[in-house]
Amino acid sequence: MFLRNCWYVVAWDHEIPADGLFNRTVLGEPLLLFRRADGRIVALEDRCCHRLAPLSKGRKEGDCVRCGYHGLKFNAEGACVEVPGLESVPPKARVRSYPVALRHKWVFVWMGDPARADTALLPDNFSCDHPDWRNIPGYLHYDTPQLLICDNLLDFSHLSYVHEKTLGNSTAIAQVRPEIEKVPRGLRVSRKVRNVPPPAYWARARDFGGGHVDRWFIYDFLLPGTLLMHSGGRPTGDAEGDMRRAVELHSCQTLTPETETSTHYFFQQSHRAALGGEWLTQMIHDGLLVAFEEDRAMITAQARNIERGPEAPMLPLAMDAALVQFRRLLAQAVEAEQA
Amino acid sequence: MFLRNCWYVVAWDHEIPADGLFNRTVLGEPLLLFRRADGRIVALEDRCCHRLAPLSKGRKEGDCVRCGYHGLKFNAEGACVEVPGLESVPPKARVRSYPVALRHKWVFVWMGDPARADTALLPDNFSCDHPDWRNIPGYLHYDTPQLLICDNLLDFSHLSYVHEKTLGNSTAIAQVRPEIEKVPRGLRVSRKVRNVPPPAYWARARDFGGGHVDRWFIYDFLLPGTLLMHSGGRPTGDAEGDMRRAVELHSCQTLTPETETSTHYFFQQSHRAALGGEWLTQMIHDGLLVAFEEDRAMITAQARNIERGPEAPMLPLAMDAALVQFRRLLAQAVEAEQA
Amino acid sequence: MFLRNCWYVVAWDHEIPADGLFNRTVLGEPLLLFRRADGRIVALEDRCCHRLAPLSKGRKEGDCVRCGYHGLKFNAEGACVEVPGLESVPPKARVRSYPVALRHKWVFVWMGDPARADTALLPDNFSCDHPDWRNIPGYLHYDTPQLLICDNLLDFSHLSYVHEKTLGNSTAIAQVRPEIEKVPRGLRVSRKVRNVPPPAYWARARDFGGGHVDRWFIYDFLLPGTLLMHSGGRPTGDAEGDMRRAVELHSCQTLTPETETSTHYFFQQSHRAALGGEWLTQMIHDGLLVAFEEDRAMITAQARNIERGPEAPMLPLAMDAALVQFRRLLAQAVEAEQA
Repeated sequence: MFLRNCWYVVAWDHEIPADGLFNRTVLGEPLLLFRRADGRIVALEDRCCHRLAPLSKGRKEGDCVRCGYHGLKFNAEGACVEVPGLESVPPKARVRSYPVALRHKWVFVWMGDPARADTALLPDNFSCDHPDWRNIPGYLHYDTPQLLICDNLLDFSHLSYVHEKTLGNSTAIAQVRPEIEKVPRGLRVSRKVRNVPPPAYWARARDFGGGHVDRWFIYDFLLPGTLLMHSGGRPTGDAEGDMRRAVELHSCQTLTPETETSTHYFFQQSHRAALGGEWLTQMIHDGLLVAFEEDRAMITAQARNIERGPEAPMLPLAMDAALVQFRRLLAQAVEAEQA
Repeated sequence: MFLRNCWYVVAWDHEIPADGLFNRTVLGEPLLLFRRADGRIVALEDRCCHRLAPLSKGRKEGDCVRCGYHGLKFNAEGACVEVPGLESVPPKARVRSYPVALRHKWVFVWMGDPARADTALLPDNFSCDHPDWRNIPGYLHYDTPQLLICDNLLDFSHLSYVHEKTLGNSTAIAQVRPEIEKVPRGLRVSRKVRNVPPPAYWARARDFGGGHVDRWFIYDFLLPGTLLMHSGGRPTGDAEGDMRRAVELHSCQTLTPETETSTHYFFQQSHRAALGGEWLTQMIHDGLLVAFEEDRAMITAQARNIERGPEAPMLPLAMDAALVQFRRLLAQAVEAEQA
Repeated sequence: MFLRNCWYVVAWDHEIPADGLFNRTVLGEPLLLFRRADGRIVALEDRCCHRLAPLSKGRKEGDCVRCGYHGLKFNAEGACVEVPGLESVPPKARVRSYPVALRHKWVFVWMGDPARADTALLPDNFSCDHPDWRNIPGYLHYDTPQLLICDNLLDFSHLSYVHEKTLGNSTAIAQVRPEIEKVPRGLRVSRKVRNVPPPAYWARARDFGGGHVDRWFIYDFLLPGTLLMHSGGRPTGDAEGDMRRAVELHSCQTLTPETETSTHYFFQQSHRAALGGEWLTQMIHDGLLVAFEEDRAMITAQARNIERGPEAPMLPLAMDAALVQFRRLLAQAVEAEQA
């Protein structure tokens, strides 16, 4: 049971071609995405109302799409405007249309009641597209339910183990208990780790002289599954507000259920543009991909174990505080929506 | 729920080896096919009555087959005639035998009550094997239910879209409403399209001088899923009866459910022998394969969409008249059989 | 429904690394296997009690294993001894531990009540590791239920057909009715075949001068699925007790359900060390692999036929006596265990 009245990221802006058809499944529903002549993105049900063929196997005609099976033509609102061989089009001939929002290179669709689509609910993924920040957009497909990946992002103690040799580099991360606060539609998780060795790649951007750093990870995790994170570190001893020798990062990550058992993962990790050029952006992205494959291997193995013994209970531990709260938040939101 | 008291094509004649075992699944049942010494084809249940091993993994011994697991030997009627180590064979030791008919290179099996097998019900696939006609036999396997392919063949408006660049070559086909008549055990669908460009390959067989043609597609579509079609075209302006400058084709196609969700497709498109030699036969066959792959891609995509959202309704349109009638005919026949 | 209070072979001794983690699924349960510093093998549930990740994706730390997801550490008894970030470990934090026995290179696990684990119930697989005998250990994975493979081993009449050109080499094997006796937790099956050609490979170990042999196959087949077999042959005419010109073999084979529909198969065929050196051992092993692939192909085809028509009955025949008795024995043991 998915939350429906919310924005889900369906694609990076650059994935939707200027003149062609793009399709992706969200919440088990096949979506067709294409651009109008003015560049605005359209999201329609990717399933002709006639015989249920995917419209994405048809072709774009101006701001319309024509089904490749029997030629029905639909406009950008999903209304059928032509049935070959018929004088007039039956009024019921239409496919569902989804509200779309483009913000900072993320393409969002509203999967619930279109009348309730509200751009005020879009997350602030500013660093995806901001002159002061640099990043490379990333995408991964997971063969696991979305919530297992949310769990992962809501408990960074895994950095010490899953990412021991990549993002983590210290068991101290798992030792620190984060602060958790309620924010609108989500949680704020703040973890500060003092006096630890920096991740290996930081040394290439900043000279820490072999010394330790204080690190921070401060993120909002918002419904339906979006992480917006300020993180970074400064030489241990520098004052909390002093950013002069700091590494300063911002990451936007979001999880969109493809089906009940598979998930789209859109992400980027930005660094301050002032910190370095293309070589640094690429290095951070490459490192992130290595680390995210570590996550995917672990979470996929976990998911297979769960499928094999769905009755096996999980033992709640203190480190689960945030994920337990977020699961509760989501369950309440779904319940409210069903009521 | 399949119709059982009818003939299904299980193979082309040439697929059954002179001295060996052939197997294919029909209506979910594993069938073994082989030839007696006199060449007549035998169809038995491909499942030993003892431990259910496929007999097709055993060997032919004269007009018998011996199971490769424990050596039970069955004659061409399916009766067990030897159990290694047993003096006498238990009377219950037998596998089901299916009535077989060979007509014009199609091998038919009767999947229902053998007592009701009636060769008068065989379809007239004359052009599969007729001195005045030339063709190359074709076979495709579909990972979709049989009825979705029947639907496709019962509405040629798809030629304008699925086969826009192959068999269709004109949106006019979809514009024309065909005539539909009831015939015994099926429907006759007649579509005449006037003054359209000919399919590209026709120009190699006939010189149309760049002009348009009048085309016809007249086919019977018969239970359980067989298309017998006269089609062709003549220069626009030539009289309806005048075949002198016509391209004249006859096609036999039949769909046999392998399981509830997969289908065997046997087909050929014949041309008048007088129209051209081996080069033309090959060209027509090659073109047909390209077009039939277009169908298969579309129908498979449609089937996946239906599996993903089995509750999604289809919107009936005028072009569905024949397929709706055929689906009703089949449902009635199945219902009558169950009663 | 599996029998649980019994020993199942989970691995060959050499499969468990000296310093690393090994995993295998038994009865649908994921198992982790590793060695303590003193070499003793430990079997734990391969599923962290926290979030159900496989411990085998973590790392060995001394005689403990640390989960690679959030760092929980478990000792060799399955008790959690450390939760990163927690002062004290919750008493419920543990994974299941399985009694292990190592005997003659087979690693056994007890899948039922640990208090009832009894090494007196271990089968006598002496030839797996005996100075008078030589063999090469074998393993195969089956995508079929365990019982179909037990059936195969309980009726050697299949040697005449499945292994016609390998182990069998005579239809006489299927003609002979074996004696079947009850033994503790199983059956003894004795089959003697007189005056038949020897298997081709025997001639390389013994000179039979082109003559025939008397063969014997005498095996215990024990719960939950273990075959212990003396087999061999001597020149026809030699007295029953005379082993001077005999080929004398001993085989240990055991079938462990991986899941309801897949199986682990551990096996070896030993020959008397006096009979030949490495070349003979290798030749016997290679021949066995060829024959066991013959079995696997047949049993897999049988399993697919059963899946396709699960309602199809099997016809009991005299040759099924042992397998019917064993299936009854197993069903009774499972029923007794459930009660």
